[in-house]
Amino acid sequence: MPTPPAPFTADDYRARMARAAESAAEAGLAGILIAPGPDLVHLTGYQPPAATERLTLLVLTADRDPVLVVPALEAPDAERAPGAPATTLRPWTDGKDDPYAVTAPLLTASGRFAVSDNTWALHLLGVQQALPSTTYAALTEALPMLRAVKDSHELERLAAAGAAADAAYEEILKVPFAGRRETEVAADLAALLRRFGHSQVDFTVVGSGPNGANPHHEAGDRTIEHGDMVVLDFGGLKDGYGSDTTRTVHVGEPTPAEQHIHDVVREAQQAGFEAARAGVPCEEVDRAARTVITDAGYGDLFIHRTGHGIGVTTHEPPYMIEGETLPLVPGMCFSVEPGIYLPGRFGVRIEDIVTVTAEGPRRLNNTPHDLAVVT
Amino acid sequence: MPTPPAPFTADDYRARMARAAESAAEAGLAGILIAPGPDLVHLTGYQPPAATERLTLLVLTADRDPVLVVPALEAPDAERAPGAPATTLRPWTDGKDDPYAVTAPLLTASGRFAVSDNTWALHLLGVQQALPSTTYAALTEALPMLRAVKDSHELERLAAAGAAADAAYEEILKVPFAGRRETEVAADLAALLRRFGHSQVDFTVVGSGPNGANPHHEAGDRTIEHGDMVVLDFGGLKDGYGSDTTRTVHVGEPTPAEQHIHDVVREAQQAGFEAARAGVPCEEVDRAARTVITDAGYGDLFIHRTGHGIGVTTHEPPYMIEGETLPLVPGMCFSVEPGIYLPGRFGVRIEDIVTVTAEGPRRLNNTPHDLAVVT
Repeated sequence: MPTPPAPFTADDYRARMARAAESAAEAGLAGILIAPGPDLVHLTGYQPPAATERLTLLVLTADRDPVLVVPALEAPDAERAPGAPATTLRPWTDGKDDPYAVTAPLLTASGRFAVSDNTWALHLLGVQQALPSTTYAALTEALPMLRAVKDSHELERLAAAGAAADAAYEEILKVPFAGRRETEVAADLAALLRRFGHSQVDFTVVGSGPNGANPHHEAGDRTIEHGDMVVLDFGGLKDGYGSDTTRTVHVGEPTPAEQHIHDVVREAQQAGFEAARAGVPCEEVDRAARTVITDAGYGDLFIHRTGHGIGVTTHEPPYMIEGETLPLVPGMCFSVEPGIYLPGRFGVRIEDIVTVTAEGPRRLNNTPHDLAVVT
Repeated sequence: MPTPPAPFTADDYRARMARAAESAAEAGLAGILIAPGPDLVHLTGYQPPAATERLTLLVLTADRDPVLVVPALEAPDAERAPGAPATTLRPWTDGKDDPYAVTAPLLTASGRFAVSDNTWALHLLGVQQALPSTTYAALTEALPMLRAVKDSHELERLAAAGAAADAAYEEILKVPFAGRRETEVAADLAALLRRFGHSQVDFTVVGSGPNGANPHHEAGDRTIEHGDMVVLDFGGLKDGYGSDTTRTVHVGEPTPAEQHIHDVVREAQQAGFEAARAGVPCEEVDRAARTVITDAGYGDLFIHRTGHGIGVTTHEPPYMIEGETLPLVPGMCFSVEPGIYLPGRFGVRIEDIVTVTAEGPRRLNNTPHDLAVVT
């Protein structure tokens, strides 16, 4: 196993928070409010066990150092976060302090703020009530690039997560499929992701035969049969950064018709990959992949967007979807995952994580795209 | 093991949704918006695996049947929810529909709506942008009673969860404490909760010696020693409803000073319990328990509120806290859990779930409050 990457330091987090505050100021915002979740992890390394009705809120403004409002009971945990030294903790006590009144003086009374997407409505409305002239925009609407562009340390982690997922895929090809339940193969996949260094497994989709035609299917009791197409979509977190890969395999030799569908998806994935160049709007990646499938006559059977960003989560902006005109920037990392779903029969999807570089697109997954035959 | 309770039917959910819409109308609201989470479980039985950036929203209004806006990909899952027949599904498709534009016509253009506390800010702001004249209040602010008052079927489940937690406590007294790590006892507690029918374990706090003085401590590597006070706070879900119990035990015989602190907490818990009568404001339960501890000279060491509601979650309104003037109503269920925390030394907490009845308070936990001696 390679050496784990050095942990991010307080200075790393300080720099990220400063960049975020600058981006907000450039966008005409008075600041950014961040509740527990991936944005807080990204900006401070602090991850309380759950978002709750007790307010935890990072306040970033251009004219003041970052302040982390936390329930007094959770202050000892917050203090241990690697980014905590780059913030001022502002604890508030149950039954004594109104957390929104504690937060209000940190904000400009009539400013417009970006607020992390997953902030509870309870908290947004609480802050807004304490300062009725403030207005709000969702972080991914106001500052979609905030977490989307990864620095070199983050890219290194994402590449390592992708390599671990590749290693898991190579091993899963060796296990028996026919005669076993989807859930058994899914358990194998999860164990392999962990063996190759994942600390968290987010999903292990095993969609065999007709189950593969539902892109939302995870893994069920169906026993995989000889002749099945099987969609394998798996990922999680390794050293804090995500993997997400899909390959479709076949139990025994595929029919020419099955092979043809797979070829179309493979060509679509390649087209989406090649479209992923700096300056190109996200929607062009979707269009490039979709055009191949539409031209082959299967447009109605590609029933989801082409991709999503990945970073400290396995699902985040930017989205490769019609209507997303945000231009790609070097350092963005996202999935390119077209599919064709034949209801009642089978599905095919191929997914790689792709990053944009000044020299063009680069894959963070590197296993072959052939329709692998398993037993 | 007793027979599991009959599942809630579509009619049960229909009645709950109708009651919720009526409560909203009585409170002068145009309706209620419910995102995935405990409120959606309570009202429809539908529990998507996670709240995400894709809008899922139940819209309840007085003049229209319930509508459940769902991503098309998740519609098959939503359709299988037990409450789905009591709603109209309104699927929307990635990249084709704007989910907020799909939702807007379901709302009164200039109405005030209650929105579930944990609704993502992204979604609240999205709906608000689609209908700029609408205004919003957090559900627990606008309609704090919505889930707080349990019906007889819910009470039966909460009582069963409490009895299972009691059974787990009786068994944990028999395991060895001294010489084992907190995490080992915590694992025993989790296994016992599952053995007695819990499908989900939410927490198994084992706070030994000085760790017990941090009410936020869960369980760590500390080896429990002879002479330790040990706080055990454990709970989870059984048949969809929560348990949450705390008892403090002692490894070997306690000193008179330890026994005295425990006696004060026990008296405080009894005082809080006795205060829990219909018509009494929630804060009076907190005051009753707190007064006992303050009068004994430990007021500064009782550093949290006295209790929280419980139902389809182990943590929900109503809150027994100074400033909560909401009057108690028969059917409300909540914890009464005073504690004293001596930094660097030990903590003591005693917690029962209590329900309000027309005849007075009733405990849903019934194991003794003595300071049990373990080995």
